[in-house]
Amino acid sequence: MGLNNKYDVIVIGSGPSGFTAAIRAIQLGAKVAIVEKSLIGGTCLNCGCLPTKFLWQALKLKRKIQKSYEYGFKVNLEPIVFSNILIKKDKNIINLRKGMKAILSSYNVDIIEGVASFMDKNNLIVSNNEGNNILEIFSDRIIIASGTSPSIMKGIEFDGNRIINSTNALNLKEIPKSMLVVGGGAIGIEMATIFSGFGCHVTLAENKNCLLPNEDREVSEEIKRNLIKQGVDILISCSDALNDIDKYEKVLIVTGRMPNNDLKLERAGIKTIGKGFVETNEFCQTNVSNIYAVGDIAGRSLLAYTAQSEGAIAAENAVKMNSISINNFVIPQVVFSMPPSSSVKVSNFLRCKNVIYGKFPFTASGRAFIENERSGFVKCAVDKTNKKPLAFWIVGAHSDELINVASQIIKSDICHMSRESVFHPSFSESLFNAYEDAFDKCVELTKKNKDLKL
Amino acid sequence: MGLNNKYDVIVIGSGPSGFTAAIRAIQLGAKVAIVEKSLIGGTCLNCGCLPTKFLWQALKLKRKIQKSYEYGFKVNLEPIVFSNILIKKDKNIINLRKGMKAILSSYNVDIIEGVASFMDKNNLIVSNNEGNNILEIFSDRIIIASGTSPSIMKGIEFDGNRIINSTNALNLKEIPKSMLVVGGGAIGIEMATIFSGFGCHVTLAENKNCLLPNEDREVSEEIKRNLIKQGVDILISCSDALNDIDKYEKVLIVTGRMPNNDLKLERAGIKTIGKGFVETNEFCQTNVSNIYAVGDIAGRSLLAYTAQSEGAIAAENAVKMNSISINNFVIPQVVFSMPPSSSVKVSNFLRCKNVIYGKFPFTASGRAFIENERSGFVKCAVDKTNKKPLAFWIVGAHSDELINVASQIIKSDICHMSRESVFHPSFSESLFNAYEDAFDKCVELTKKNKDLKL
Repeated sequence: MGLNNKYDVIVIGSGPSGFTAAIRAIQLGAKVAIVEKSLIGGTCLNCGCLPTKFLWQALKLKRKIQKSYEYGFKVNLEPIVFSNILIKKDKNIINLRKGMKAILSSYNVDIIEGVASFMDKNNLIVSNNEGNNILEIFSDRIIIASGTSPSIMKGIEFDGNRIINSTNALNLKEIPKSMLVVGGGAIGIEMATIFSGFGCHVTLAENKNCLLPNEDREVSEEIKRNLIKQGVDILISCSDALNDIDKYEKVLIVTGRMPNNDLKLERAGIKTIGKGFVETNEFCQTNVSNIYAVGDIAGRSLLAYTAQSEGAIAAENAVKMNSISINNFVIPQVVFSMPPSSSVKVSNFLRCKNVIYGKFPFTASGRAFIENERSGFVKCAVDKTNKKPLAFWIVGAHSDELINVASQIIKSDICHMSRESVFHPSFSESLFNAYEDAFDKCVELTKKNKDLKL
Repeated sequence: MGLNNKYDVIVIGSGPSGFTAAIRAIQLGAKVAIVEKSLIGGTCLNCGCLPTKFLWQALKLKRKIQKSYEYGFKVNLEPIVFSNILIKKDKNIINLRKGMKAILSSYNVDIIEGVASFMDKNNLIVSNNEGNNILEIFSDRIIIASGTSPSIMKGIEFDGNRIINSTNALNLKEIPKSMLVVGGGAIGIEMATIFSGFGCHVTLAENKNCLLPNEDREVSEEIKRNLIKQGVDILISCSDALNDIDKYEKVLIVTGRMPNNDLKLERAGIKTIGKGFVETNEFCQTNVSNIYAVGDIAGRSLLAYTAQSEGAIAAENAVKMNSISINNFVIPQVVFSMPPSSSVKVSNFLRCKNVIYGKFPFTASGRAFIENERSGFVKCAVDKTNKKPLAFWIVGAHSDELINVASQIIKSDICHMSRESVFHPSFSESLFNAYEDAFDKCVELTKKNKDLKL
């Protein structure tokens, strides 16, 4: 094997975690290669966060246009051709991918196109899509960032045409007349929101007894109400959704994601757990000490931003010998319903005692009022004893950015929120108002409203 | 004087500070009256923050509609009739005012309509607009929250028609063909943005050598560039703007605000400073111990949200004897240019040593890219020694909310920003990227871009 095939760090996968790991490792002085079997950017850029948000953004704009009479405008929006939106979506994604490639190139990361598999704990074979080996590469440290793929469901065959997964759905050339979405988690809600928003008759089926079963019940109910208002049929506690699939033009299965672990991990002796996720410790290190795993494949939270954090930490640890651990993450969660919904909690929230709650509806926010985005609320959990904010839930416009305000508040571990640190008039003020409501001290709610609270 | 005219706390003025003070005082058990000589809500609601933001919001929506082809939409926006926007604006403001009245009523605050003036340190006379005394009221504690009005400029007479102030401008029934805006501070920039955005040929004149003279120079330059792009003529270092006013249809003077101190303060022995602002200590207390002053009239920062904070603090101190001080405020600042601009700093920023800077342009943000809001940047100042973020400046879409994220970061006094606490894809991530760029560790910029940085 030539010197050119020897690296300090090899990263498998170029999604958020792999990309971050590769750049950070090279910033720290390592010689780095990244192996990608498909498109640079991974799920997040190509068939996850970003295309979903583009379509969601398009829907949001459509609704803004349709409500623009609230500003005295007269607007005629011509019937929307969905394929035109897709053309723009693809253009955006291609440009963003070019941007990522430009960053990798500027840092001289070797980009190796192909499918990686382990020969042993330091050697990888890269093969092409036909399965022919094209390259052997060696590295002191290897970071696995191979991601996840949409789950396959027992007893039903994906054909990519009528029975589809989220990747297929994001590339549908036209809006189907009807669609069954199976799975009432974040992805199912986002897909139902988008397709229904553009005119599809969507039925959303969840086998648990509410949407987003792990989320606060009030949030889950608010999302459900908004979906129903938008025209979505919702079936909860529904275990037999697939019995009746003939009546839908498309059936979209979004019941989860499974690890991309077809890397011959056993040849390196790498341990997996659960559904086949790679087991890691607090340094993002696998049971094989020179091998790290980050992002979805490590199965921690399947979120792009924790993946990025893990990628950066694994790179530091791979190059500088386990210097950083990933304990005590404060992680916001967002679902792109319409309006979006989000939450963030202290990590030990479920063990907190003496919790009191405050709530502030966006109807009472001056800024939400003039922006004509009056739907939803902020709910806040506070430790009654020391007044520390413990959790925020937000359903409403901009909650995907507002949750980052909440996240910094939770992270900062303060026992007092003070109003002058939040601009007026802004949506973010509502976090403060919800916090004060927990003590019955919000000045922007009537006494009567307060009696009606939770 | 009957018992009905005796209060525990009287508040003069119902703007953000007075309103907050009144409600908080009554929440603490006091009997409270609020005296208002004009409209409930004060400057902020009636001729300041909220009407400005409504018009700005309308302009933002107009631009979104005009750029909606970026999502594949075909839209015909009929010529905008400005008076239709004003009708909607007024409707919103009236509704918000009703909301404030409903809150005051629900708490049984006595609303006294009229002009208050001191008889002595405990007694006030309320007169009607014709100057006739209609009521005498007595109180243990008085909180002055009388606000400010647009400054008058020497040598020029406001006629409310051709030579106008910001209050007049917000009620113009149609967009003038041309307008001279005198004053390149926040209000001047906001007015120039709005009127130019709706088709007026605006000339913006500032006598100092840049717009927003107290702001970071890069921010000021970016705002200037955007205004010029929008068609605004900008005259800086311009001391003779008023020599040539005949060529403008309207001349808008926005050179500052002056205290509403016509309350016969001398009869109570209340000290004023500077241009006539009421002097206060850290408890918002004047030199007369039972009298407090909050919001604009106290001249601290002329911002609605610091006014609200001061109002709450003064109420606590008035009722519970000086228990809270207003030291160490972290205060974000926002200017509604298009896109908006904002900043927040540690309070001792100018005395900080070993400051390094990072910058992240929104062109490199995935979320900004797909939202088609790629203009602007985040700039971050960091203490090189302990890695503490010291200041953020943001020019770009949503910076009016993003600055609240920055504000919580600054307030929390942390020495490390970690990515997993910020949702991806969001605009807020760019704060994190700017912070990492200060250490040349941002993974979302090419090496080449980094060499080009400040």
